[in-house]
Order: sequence, then C-alpha cells, then structure tokens
Amino acid sequence: MSGSDVKSAAAERQARVDVVLERFFSLAKNRATPFGDRYVHLWETLEANTTGGKRFRPRMVFSAYQSLGGEDFEAAAYVGAAFELLHTALIVHDDVIDHDFVRRGVANISGAYRDLALTKGTTSDVAEHSGVSAAVIAGDLALFNSYRLIDKSGVADDVRARLLEVMDEALFASAAGELIDIDFSIDPGMPPVDDILLMERLKTAVYSFECPLQAGAILAGADDDIVATLGEFGREIGIAYQLVDDLLGVFGSEAETGKTTLGDLREGKRTVIISYATTTSDWDAIAPLIGKPDLTEAEASTVRDILVSCGAKGFAEGLARYYGNRAIARLAEPHIPAALRVELHPVAEDVLGRVR
Amino acid sequence: MSGSDVKSAAAERQARVDVVLERFFSLAKNRATPFGDRYVHLWETLEANTTGGKRFRPRMVFSAYQSLGGEDFEAAAYVGAAFELLHTALIVHDDVIDHDFVRRGVANISGAYRDLALTKGTTSDVAEHSGVSAAVIAGDLALFNSYRLIDKSGVADDVRARLLEVMDEALFASAAGELIDIDFSIDPGMPPVDDILLMERLKTAVYSFECPLQAGAILAGADDDIVATLGEFGREIGIAYQLVDDLLGVFGSEAETGKTTLGDLREGKRTVIISYATTTSDWDAIAPLIGKPDLTEAEASTVRDILVSCGAKGFAEGLARYYGNRAIARLAEPHIPAALRVELHPVAEDVLGRVR
Repeated sequence: MSGSDVKSAAAERQARVDVVLERFFSLAKNRATPFGDRYVHLWETLEANTTGGKRFRPRMVFSAYQSLGGEDFEAAAYVGAAFELLHTALIVHDDVIDHDFVRRGVANISGAYRDLALTKGTTSDVAEHSGVSAAVIAGDLALFNSYRLIDKSGVADDVRARLLEVMDEALFASAAGELIDIDFSIDPGMPPVDDILLMERLKTAVYSFECPLQAGAILAGADDDIVATLGEFGREIGIAYQLVDDLLGVFGSEAETGKTTLGDLREGKRTVIISYATTTSDWDAIAPLIGKPDLTEAEASTVRDILVSCGAKGFAEGLARYYGNRAIARLAEPHIPAALRVELHPVAEDVLGRVR
Repeated sequence: MSGSDVKSAAAERQARVDVVLERFFSLAKNRATPFGDRYVHLWETLEANTTGGKRFRPRMVFSAYQSLGGEDFEAAAYVGAAFELLHTALIVHDDVIDHDFVRRGVANISGAYRDLALTKGTTSDVAEHSGVSAAVIAGDLALFNSYRLIDKSGVADDVRARLLEVMDEALFASAAGELIDIDFSIDPGMPPVDDILLMERLKTAVYSFECPLQAGAILAGADDDIVATLGEFGREIGIAYQLVDDLLGVFGSEAETGKTTLGDLREGKRTVIISYATTTSDWDAIAPLIGKPDLTEAEASTVRDILVSCGAKGFAEGLARYYGNRAIARLAEPHIPAALRVELHPVAEDVLGRVR
C-alpha cells in the first residue's frame, strides 16, 4: 500500500468504530431521556470523554484482524469500540483514583461535574466530591457497556466466549496494575525497575496492546500459536511504549507530546528513569527536586542534565530498544503470516523511532 | 409446604448461590496469585464483602423461577449470584460516593485498605485515598464479573441475551438513581416526595426487586405478560420496601434493624418522611435538628414526636401500604399462575407487616 492508501485505510477503520460508538451513545441518550436532563448530560459527558482519542486500541484490533484475512468489518468495529469504551472506563476511574479533574488540558468528567456543582454555590469540597461521584458512575456505565459491545458484535458463540475471556483478562490485569500503583503511592521509597515495569505493563500495556491484538486475531479465526505470539508481541511493544512515554514525559518537547515536561517531575512519578537514578551516586543531588510541586524550568533542566549524566536516560532508552527489538523478533517467527508482519512492523518502528 | 419446608428450600437455594460464588472467588484468587499477595487480598476482601448478606436478590430470582416451573437450579444459581455480585459492586461504589469506610459495623473495602495504609505510617488523608482507590477497583471487578456470571450460566443464546438486557436495565436505572442522589446532596433544599420516591426506586428497587424477579421469569421461559407484571409487582413492592426502610431508620428499634435510629436524622437523609414534614407548619420546630451531626437521643425523641404529630409518619406509612397493596393486586391478575401468587404474597406481606 502507498502512504496515502495506508492513511485512508486507517481513516476508514476509525470511521467504522466511530459509527458504532455514535450509535451506542445515541441509543443510551435516548434511553436516558425519561430519567431527566441530568442523566442525558452524564451520557453526553461520557461520550465527549470517549471521542477525540487516537482510537489506538481499535487500530490494534483492526491491524490483527485485517492482516489475518478478516472481512467482517462491522464485527471488528464493535470489538474495537468495546476496547475503546473499556479504555474510557479505565481512564475515568484512574482519574478518580488520581484525584485529577483535568485530562489533556480540558475538564474530565470529575471536572465537568465539579464545575457544575460550583455554579450552584456549593463549597469546593462538596463540588469536588460531586464531580468524583459522577465519574464513578460514568466509569461504571462505560465498563459494563464495553462488555455489552462485544456481546452485540453479532459474532458466533465460541468466538464471543473467547473475546469475552480476552476482555476479562484486560480488566483483570489492569486492576492488578492499578493496585500496585496505589501501593507505590503509599510507599515513600522508589520501587525497583522491575516492579515499575510490571505495574506499567499490567495497568496499561495489557489492555492497550496485548488484548486488542489477540481479540483481532481471534475474531479472524487465527490459530492459537498466532494469538499467543501476538500477545507476546503486544507485551514487548507495550513495555517499550511505556518506557518511551516516560522518557518523553521528562525529555520530550511539549509540541510533540502535548503535555508539559514538568508534570512528571513535579509529581515525582515513579518511572524506570527515576528508579534507575536512585541507584547512582548522583541521586542525592536531584532527590530534593523530584516530586517538588513548584519545580522551576531551571531546576528541571538541572534534573534532566543529571538524569543524562548518571546514565538513567540512556538506561531507559536502551531498555526501550531492547523490548522493541524483541517485539520485532516475534514478528519474524515462521508461523506469523507475512501480511501481519508487514502490518505490525511499522507499529514497532514507530515506538522505536521515538527513542532514536 | 410446611414452615420448615419453606425454610429448608430457602436454605437450599442460598447454598446453591453460595457454591457458585465460592467457586467464582476461588478461581479469581488462584488467577490473582501470580500478581502478588496484595491482589489476592483484594479478591479476598471483595469476597468478604459479598458473603454474609441476606442473598435477597438471588431469593427473588429463585422465587420467580421455581414457581414458574423452572428446574435448572444450577442456571438459576448463576443468575442469582450475578445479581448478588451486581449488588456488591453497587454498594462498594456507593460507599465510595458516600465516603463511607464502614458498613454494617465492620470496615468495608475502603476501610480495610485505609487501615492497611495506616499501618504503613501514611497520613490519614493518604490512607483514606488509598482505601477509596482500592474500592473503586474492587467495585469494577465485581461489576464486570456480574455480567460474566450471566454469561457463564450456560443458558441458551436467546435467554442469555434477554437476561443481559435485564442486567443492563438494572445498572442503567441504578446509575440514574445515584446521579439524582448526588444532585440532592449538592442542593441544600429538600426535594419533593415524588423525586425522592423516584430516586429510591431507581437506585435500589429496580435492581433489587424488578430485575431479579424478571430474570427468574425469563429463565423459566415465562410469557411476556408475566414478565411485565412481575416488573410492576417488583416496582410497587420495592417502593413500599424503601418507605418502610426509611421509617425503620427513624422509628425502628436497633434490635430489629441492627443500626442506630439516630444515623438517618444526624445525616439529614432525604426521605419521604422528612420531605413531607417540610410542607407542614411544624417544620420550623425541627428543621435545626435534621442533619445535626451531634443530635442527642433526647433531641431525636422530640423530632420523632413531631414527625408523628405533623402527620409525616402516618403519611409515609399510608404510602407504603398503598404501594404494598398495589403490589398484591398485581398478583391477583388472571395471567399470574397460582404458584407464583402463593410464592410472592408472603414477600409483600413481610413488607407490609413491618409497617403496622
């Protein structure tokens, strides 16, 4: 395929997923109408928090599905939409857990409902609590309906059962990862590199890479060994992706990532980079700056320099490359069809390309 | 059936549901083991919060199912267990919303995890947040798996699809009810009686009465008109039940209800009783006492006297009787089989018996 063909194929996939989600939300809003404007508004807010994303997980479903010969794009769109809604559910509840009221610069569900309560003259405590409460409910609706969309995909019984297992695995792992993350937050120390990798993998990579790829393959009727290898590819590239994401969170440009490169440092986010740095003799010099809420740009610059000189940046980059290359090696296994290899190689290259 | 037969039949139903839930949690705990002790512990805590209940919703499923001739008790136990797990999910997240750390006198999931964090020397704020976060995750797992249990009941496709619709309706309504309840909490005024009845019905009655009864009937292959009438019966008796519950919350004996009769008054809980009282000339006398966090027993006694003399208690009792009798009238409809009538009449009588 030429570059523009690839783009239009991607646009077509996204459009199909969007149609499924639009239909789903349209039905939900109609159904909510007898319960009052406020309930319709909750569904609208949930929809706003679902649209506008990169549709990354549906893309993984389609990538595996199409390159393994799948032709029922309607079913694939339902499965893709199910993962997108699962993603919404998880980030909405993750924001509850992190007590965040903003995502990508705009008010999230908690934020929208907090602001609504404030206009009614409540105290900020009550307003925040009202916001968080609405987000708990909205996340529940998204979670439950992610399951529902698999069920409504119209696929045969045995396929549906296997897809639901994959979906179940996605939530099971993500919950385990969230729990580890909560443990981190009550422990003042910095966890070792391995624990951070495990947490990031469970919390995000399983449901973002492994499971959507496997779901696409199952839907296409692929052999078990292909499904298994896709899981391994997804795991490796998912870990690489998280490492790159953490690197960009400190060293990226705001223009590229769309978020400030001060945030992770100010928050004291537990990443492989920082965990590595704690084991070096340079740590004492930057320890007071990590997690400093009012860290200045000049201080951040000092931190970055030391993270480079102590080898933390290089270590994280090396690890990202290692996992990225392992992912690519999976694609070279003889039972992987050429079309699938051609489809997924660029996904891995994209991730590696962000390391340099 | 004799009294002891009824008891042993009830015990047998409960035992079947317990077996399904034990098996479910046992599998989940095994599956959690590779993710570490803490995840296993989360599942144990979730299990502890699921067992020990009255198994009220499974009882509704079985009542409808058995008296409509159903004989696959294994399937009914799965459907009953699904509603029990939905109940767990909803109360766990309701406790998150209400910021409660205790239920029925013992630490709930938030409480258990808060206490765990405190033993690690965190501040109480961090510990509470850790507790609430664990509860968000645990509720998600329960919610997702309530769906799963329907799916694993082994029933035919068309029945499964209808059961999932009912389950969906249960969550859809409960979320709408929670949202109205949150709105109440940010509005300093007292909502009118109708709004309170609607909120209580949506938040609790739909998933506790209407949906389990309908699920039992669908599982038994009942005609649509029976399913519809059971929904109406469930709605009426569910509203009556909530009214009685609110009456007992103020006028009951602790021995009977197992909870203090000061709690609802201290919290300023929005009930039909209080809403009615606000419309009477006696309201000014008790207004300062409703929602007073340190209300004394003597003050509560004054409030109770006035709620009687202003007619609020009598009004709520009359309304409970009205809905209870309407429920009983549904059972008299000609298309309702005698066995179902005989089964459900005592359920309604129980509720009415608590008014007197």
